[in-house]
Amino acid sequence: LEKVMQGRQPTDLVLRCTVIDREGNVQGISGQIKKSDLCVEHKLNPRDLRKIDSRVPNLVPTILVRKEAILFNILHIRALVKADAVILFDTYGSNDSRLHSAFLYHLEHNLKARGSGSPYEFRAIDSILVSVLSALEAEMVFIRNLVGGLLAEMEDDINHDKFKRLLHYSRRLASFKNRAKLVQQALDEVLEQDEDLNAMYLTDKMNGTVRENEHEELEVLLEVFSKQVEEVVNEAENIESNVQSTQEIVELILDSNRNALLGLDLKVSIGTMGIGAGALVAGLFGMNLTSHLEETPWGFVALSAFSSAFALLVAWVGFRRLDKIRKVGLSSPRRGGGNQRANVPRPWIPLPLRRRKTDGWS
Amino acid sequence: LEKVMQGRQPTDLVLRCTVIDREGNVQGISGQIKKSDLCVEHKLNPRDLRKIDSRVPNLVPTILVRKEAILFNILHIRALVKADAVILFDTYGSNDSRLHSAFLYHLEHNLKARGSGSPYEFRAIDSILVSVLSALEAEMVFIRNLVGGLLAEMEDDINHDKFKRLLHYSRRLASFKNRAKLVQQALDEVLEQDEDLNAMYLTDKMNGTVRENEHEELEVLLEVFSKQVEEVVNEAENIESNVQSTQEIVELILDSNRNALLGLDLKVSIGTMGIGAGALVAGLFGMNLTSHLEETPWGFVALSAFSSAFALLVAWVGFRRLDKIRKVGLSSPRRGGGNQRANVPRPWIPLPLRRRKTDGWS
Amino acid sequence: LEKVMQGRQPTDLVLRCTVIDREGNVQGISGQIKKSDLCVEHKLNPRDLRKIDSRVPNLVPTILVRKEAILFNILHIRALVKADAVILFDTYGSNDSRLHSAFLYHLEHNLKARGSGSPYEFRAIDSILVSVLSALEAEMVFIRNLVGGLLAEMEDDINHDKFKRLLHYSRRLASFKNRAKLVQQALDEVLEQDEDLNAMYLTDKMNGTVRENEHEELEVLLEVFSKQVEEVVNEAENIESNVQSTQEIVELILDSNRNALLGLDLKVSIGTMGIGAGALVAGLFGMNLTSHLEETPWGFVALSAFSSAFALLVAWVGFRRLDKIRKVGLSSPRRGGGNQRANVPRPWIPLPLRRRKTDGWS
Amino acid sequence: LEKVMQGRQPTDLVLRCTVIDREGNVQGISGQIKKSDLCVEHKLNPRDLRKIDSRVPNLVPTILVRKEAILFNILHIRALVKADAVILFDTYGSNDSRLHSAFLYHLEHNLKARGSGSPYEFRAIDSILVSVLSALEAEMVFIRNLVGGLLAEMEDDINHDKFKRLLHYSRRLASFKNRAKLVQQALDEVLEQDEDLNAMYLTDKMNGTVRENEHEELEVLLEVFSKQVEEVVNEAENIESNVQSTQEIVELILDSNRNALLGLDLKVSIGTMGIGAGALVAGLFGMNLTSHLEETPWGFVALSAFSSAFALLVAWVGFRRLDKIRKVGLSSPRRGGGNQRANVPRPWIPLPLRRRKTDGWS
Amino acid sequence: LEKVMQGRQPTDLVLRCTVIDREGNVQGISGQIKKSDLCVEHKLNPRDLRKIDSRVPNLVPTILVRKEAILFNILHIRALVKADAVILFDTYGSNDSRLHSAFLYHLEHNLKARGSGSPYEFRAIDSILVSVLSALEAEMVFIRNLVGGLLAEMEDDINHDKFKRLLHYSRRLASFKNRAKLVQQALDEVLEQDEDLNAMYLTDKMNGTVRENEHEELEVLLEVFSKQVEEVVNEAENIESNVQSTQEIVELILDSNRNALLGLDLKVSIGTMGIGAGALVAGLFGMNLTSHLEETPWGFVALSAFSSAFALLVAWVGFRRLDKIRKVGLSSPRRGGGNQRANVPRPWIPLPLRRRKTDGWS
Repeated sequence: LEKVMQGRQPTDLVLRCTVIDREGNVQGISGQIKKSDLCVEHKLNPRDLRKIDSRVPNLVPTILVRKEAILFNILHIRALVKADAVILFDTYGSNDSRLHSAFLYHLEHNLKARGSGSPYEFRAIDSILVSVLSALEAEMVFIRNLVGGLLAEMEDDINHDKFKRLLHYSRRLASFKNRAKLVQQALDEVLEQDEDLNAMYLTDKMNGTVRENEHEELEVLLEVFSKQVEEVVNEAENIESNVQSTQEIVELILDSNRNALLGLDLKVSIGTMGIGAGALVAGLFGMNLTSHLEETPWGFVALSAFSSAFALLVAWVGFRRLDKIRKVGLSSPRRGGGNQRANVPRPWIPLPLRRRKTDGWS
Repeated sequence: LEKVMQGRQPTDLVLRCTVIDREGNVQGISGQIKKSDLCVEHKLNPRDLRKIDSRVPNLVPTILVRKEAILFNILHIRALVKADAVILFDTYGSNDSRLHSAFLYHLEHNLKARGSGSPYEFRAIDSILVSVLSALEAEMVFIRNLVGGLLAEMEDDINHDKFKRLLHYSRRLASFKNRAKLVQQALDEVLEQDEDLNAMYLTDKMNGTVRENEHEELEVLLEVFSKQVEEVVNEAENIESNVQSTQEIVELILDSNRNALLGLDLKVSIGTMGIGAGALVAGLFGMNLTSHLEETPWGFVALSAFSSAFALLVAWVGFRRLDKIRKVGLSSPRRGGGNQRANVPRPWIPLPLRRRKTDGWS
Repeated sequence: LEKVMQGRQPTDLVLRCTVIDREGNVQGISGQIKKSDLCVEHKLNPRDLRKIDSRVPNLVPTILVRKEAILFNILHIRALVKADAVILFDTYGSNDSRLHSAFLYHLEHNLKARGSGSPYEFRAIDSILVSVLSALEAEMVFIRNLVGGLLAEMEDDINHDKFKRLLHYSRRLASFKNRAKLVQQALDEVLEQDEDLNAMYLTDKMNGTVRENEHEELEVLLEVFSKQVEEVVNEAENIESNVQSTQEIVELILDSNRNALLGLDLKVSIGTMGIGAGALVAGLFGMNLTSHLEETPWGFVALSAFSSAFALLVAWVGFRRLDKIRKVGLSSPRRGGGNQRANVPRPWIPLPLRRRKTDGWS
Repeated sequence: LEKVMQGRQPTDLVLRCTVIDREGNVQGISGQIKKSDLCVEHKLNPRDLRKIDSRVPNLVPTILVRKEAILFNILHIRALVKADAVILFDTYGSNDSRLHSAFLYHLEHNLKARGSGSPYEFRAIDSILVSVLSALEAEMVFIRNLVGGLLAEMEDDINHDKFKRLLHYSRRLASFKNRAKLVQQALDEVLEQDEDLNAMYLTDKMNGTVRENEHEELEVLLEVFSKQVEEVVNEAENIESNVQSTQEIVELILDSNRNALLGLDLKVSIGTMGIGAGALVAGLFGMNLTSHLEETPWGFVALSAFSSAFALLVAWVGFRRLDKIRKVGLSSPRRGGGNQRANVPRPWIPLPLRRRKTDGWS
Repeated sequence: LEKVMQGRQPTDLVLRCTVIDREGNVQGISGQIKKSDLCVEHKLNPRDLRKIDSRVPNLVPTILVRKEAILFNILHIRALVKADAVILFDTYGSNDSRLHSAFLYHLEHNLKARGSGSPYEFRAIDSILVSVLSALEAEMVFIRNLVGGLLAEMEDDINHDKFKRLLHYSRRLASFKNRAKLVQQALDEVLEQDEDLNAMYLTDKMNGTVRENEHEELEVLLEVFSKQVEEVVNEAENIESNVQSTQEIVELILDSNRNALLGLDLKVSIGTMGIGAGALVAGLFGMNLTSHLEETPWGFVALSAFSSAFALLVAWVGFRRLDKIRKVGLSSPRRGGGNQRANVPRPWIPLPLRRRKTDGWS
């Protein structure tokens, strides 16, 4: 614990980062900046950087709006957006070059396109959110395919190995849904706070323009992404409920299959009992005792027939009792379930409350 | 991923659509409009069209209120409503001509009926919502019949095939409920925002009339539809809880049936054991050894009777033990369950807290 | 679908209704009014009547406050309350004369009692809500008795038929709870909107008195009913959670009973195996081969004893292994469960977090 | 139903109650007051008394703030607090003298202690809430002990009787949690409404002092109790989730135990089959047919050995197959589960989404 | 109960505590202060101290803001923070010296560091929250390791002992999640109330500086901790859902394993039945009756072959029926499940609602 508490002391003073300037050109790749310099230069609070430099991956994404900068910490992106520069921090262990370079390419392209009318910081935010959304959608499609494939395989055969995979996929799905939900929550938190939205017009702030609740452009931008993340979340929830109902039905199918197995087992047991009964008869006559039938010429045939008949009789009695039990339906078994239901006291009851019963299955 | 990100570039420039003019006449069927023209003409943001032209079906319906137009994207309808025109976009793969033509017929009829006093855009909204509601209700009735029929069939017989169908139906039901809920949510989101409601009076805006929180007519219109969608959602939830409780009870029935099967199995096993015991006696006397009974005249009958009696005795002991176990009730088995409960320490306890026990089953 | 959409056209022009005048006298029983007349006379929107004349029973109750009237559509009551008249609409298929006549009697009585100080419309509302509440409470008592009776029967015996009834009751309970909740929701929606509460003072409106947020009397009236409906909902939820926990425990009991059955089955199987082992010995000596014991005088007794002893030995070994398995408790089986738990690594952990363990079962 | 509706007529005119005056002395024990007098004297609405005189126990507690009095109806306490008197109504069937007298003693003592600075009505409220809280805590401790004891007993042995008790306790727990929650809700409802808080300064009102949102003392008083009730609710929820997870694990244990029983059953069955196979061999040689081995001197020993060996062989084959099946783990059975998992298509996926997998069990 | 109520009387007048002065030096270790002195000196309400001196551990953490002090009661920390002193109360039974001394060290260090610009009370709050967070994180890591280890062990083997441990861990996890949630709730409650935030600037209050909604520094401080606690809660929920889905899958695996066991059991039973059938034939010929085959030279071989063949035939019939049943998949068994599904009436249905079916598994 002491280590944990000391770990909170400001010992990690250097952050690796990439800077993109006002023109959209990458200034330095994986340069290093002192944390204290960062704070002074961009008017940040040292606490704000805690999340960015912490070594453990962050579960809860955050968008922090500060005086001259916006700090993004969503999924794989940890960036500081200013009115004239974007600083991307290297996430610990982030060697996922494809995602990163696609993001960098899009960001540079977007920042250079000054003609679009949006201020510099909005184009940066747009790129960041597009990258986040792409990552989410890519994983969503991946998981949907995994789960869909597994469920399709289950159509043919349900076995131990499939359950194991189902467990892995549903853990992964739950973790993915959680992350997507947290991203949406982070977006919505910013959308809900008017002062934050105002404060995100960094270019205007730099130019000294004062804004009063005129943040429609930014609102639309964030809302569109929030809706799309919501769609991802929704899709994930759909998959989850699919998995859930599949599990429930699989359990019922296994149960029903077990009953079928038991039914066959019973048939076999009954058959064995019948055979045993026949064997008992045979055994009795196999005793070294005088049954006075020893010399009867047709004794053997008669008793063979008798013991076989006895075996069949016993089995037949057993099968009849089995048949009575095995048929299973929601309605009561044959013995007049209908009547029994009719015996339930059915006192007078206000009509409006009875009405829905006419649906046939309320 | 790169493909996904490039897919976001504005490459799809043309949209197929149908235009209905101020008089309610269809101007062009399945004409094509450039996205950029659309944006300029109707003062839209390119981002707003993203949802409409995206190829994947949208899960989350949206109602976007813009300066001179309202964009609907609900279920099968993607439309742009203006003060003097309605533009219907063809949904990708939308060949459902019946639903579409019914909608078009209703829309034209409604738009031509100027006498109703409602402004043009409200009549268009009314038609759109009626079509959405009809689609939802039609599917709701369809699913209710499917599920109701299946549950009715289950009254007679519960088997593997029915579970499979139950799974399909409950997946479908969950997906339907989700869609209906999202439609209601979209309606409620509009209803909650006064500025949006005001902005939807497009005719007044076109005529330059300024409105200040006098959107009663529109509110009533949307509220009525919201209530009806809520009814659909509610019905879907009812069906779902029905399916849920049926599943639970079916599991209990299967469990109970399994116990009954096991009970019969036990009876058979006990019978077999009894027969085996008899056979053992017979087998002993079948040994090639001298039991000194070989010549006793009644030895055979006596021993046959003895081994049968032994078989019955063993079976009877078994059946008695089975009977003790098989009877199952919530109350403890015979061995004085009542007494045992009485042994539970029952300290003094404030009366009001004890009161509900008199109900007999709290 | 077309039919559905045409069904929305205003083809049903006539409504059957009963009118009660200012003095509380019934004017016309089951008279018929044209919908258009109704709208004009009471300044209603045609849409408002949709719910009242729709043939399908409504799930979602509504209280609509209009300019000169209040429209109630709750459970069995569809009424239009004005400042000087009450119009009761016949619900489709409503032949529940007892509930209806009790309501009419109470309403007339209440409307005639002018001395109470409440305005006309409040007395009408009071009667309506009393009738709704009575219907809810009557059904609640009915369902509680049904379910309570069933659960009491389950104390003695759990069987297939009881599960079937439980399913019916829990479906019914869920549907009832849903309805009660929706009634409460409808009441609360009115209570939350100050303008609606103000608008319900119809007599004052008729007399031209202007009210500004002085709707205490009405608020108390509605609040009392809302609280009572809440009590009904709460009771229904209690019953539901009771049914739920009973189901869970019944499943455990069935499981436990199944284990007991299996245990007995095993005993029988072991017995059978023992007998079989003895029979094998006997069978071996029954072979037509010379075992050189044929003539030993005590051979029969000795071998009978030996094979019986062998049978018992085999059974005893089996029973011992069964005993090891059958005892089941939360703590690990005998083999030093306590020790094993002690082997779990138990690192140092902050005290406050450990504190609750002293409860003995955290 | 008619009876129910008539039961609502004001036929119960007399209430039994105890009055405590300004000095804290009990004026009359179990006196009777007419309801109409009560209403007139204390400016109450007849509806307010409905809850207090209703014979059925109330589930939903209420705190009603009226012009000159506060009506408490929480658990066992039904009281009317005024600025200079407290009227305690006898609850129907309330013979719980210990709780009642403890409450009365505390109330008298508290009301006499004028020096505390709090106004008369606050000291009364304090006593009422202390009594309510004590009752809740007493029952909470009682239930916790019951449940804790039961769960501790389950450590040793899980049986039918314990399930039955668990059902009773969890019903009781659910009902208790519900009651505690409703008490907290009633407190919070009062806390949320500023006008109610102001109106509760009865002494100030009597003295004509006007208060404007200066109800800090009362707020702190109620808040403290609300927090403590929350603690009780929280504790109850903890116990509930404990019971819930115990039930789930018990089900798993029963399932696992059943598998163990089945495994032993299989062993026995296999043994029986082996013995049967040996017996078949013996039986074949026991046929009255000439096997040409009859006279071989070692035939008996050889065949005994052979049939025993055959029995063991059959059993050994069976046991091997059983062993393959019986070992059960989350990972796939021996046949290279790891490989199979490796066969799952694992396309490229963005890193940040893969990160959590390194935890080893995501 | 009376004892409980008397226990509420102010009998516990002395509290043990540690005081840290303005310079960050510890003044007295475990000194004792009278409660009444405390109240007078720091302008506290006696009720505020109830929570701090109560002997039972508190579940619900609280942060109370009073006139000249802030009272913290979170997990292991019960402290009174003033503008120039911090009083730490000894928690009952708190002998966790490591956590305590680490906290004290951090607190002293923090309070001495005046240069940081934060007022005295904020540095104290920071230390308290850091200690709380460290305790939460330490336990979270500890539980995560416990549960993760157990789940990893379950990969290999699922048994009774593991379920028992799972139960203990999930109880502990639930209790931990609950505590973390309550801490977050306590922080959020303070954050939501502007007046509380203002009142926490104790130094400014002491210096007479008036603050009006300028509590950004404090807000950021609390928000950062709230976010971090949220992360802990989120992690705990992840673990919980992991455990949950593992339990569900384990149940399915046990079910599936049971079916496999039953399948093998059936095979054995069938084998036994076949052997029994063969033995019956042998037994018949073992009867002391004349079958006229006694002297046939090849009779023995022929009948041995016949009875073995009969045994195999019976077993083969049984195995075929077993095979039909045992294969279990979501799709219906071989008998043309596809056809059966095609028989389901599939009426016309609006396209948009059918669209999602193309996913292959909706």
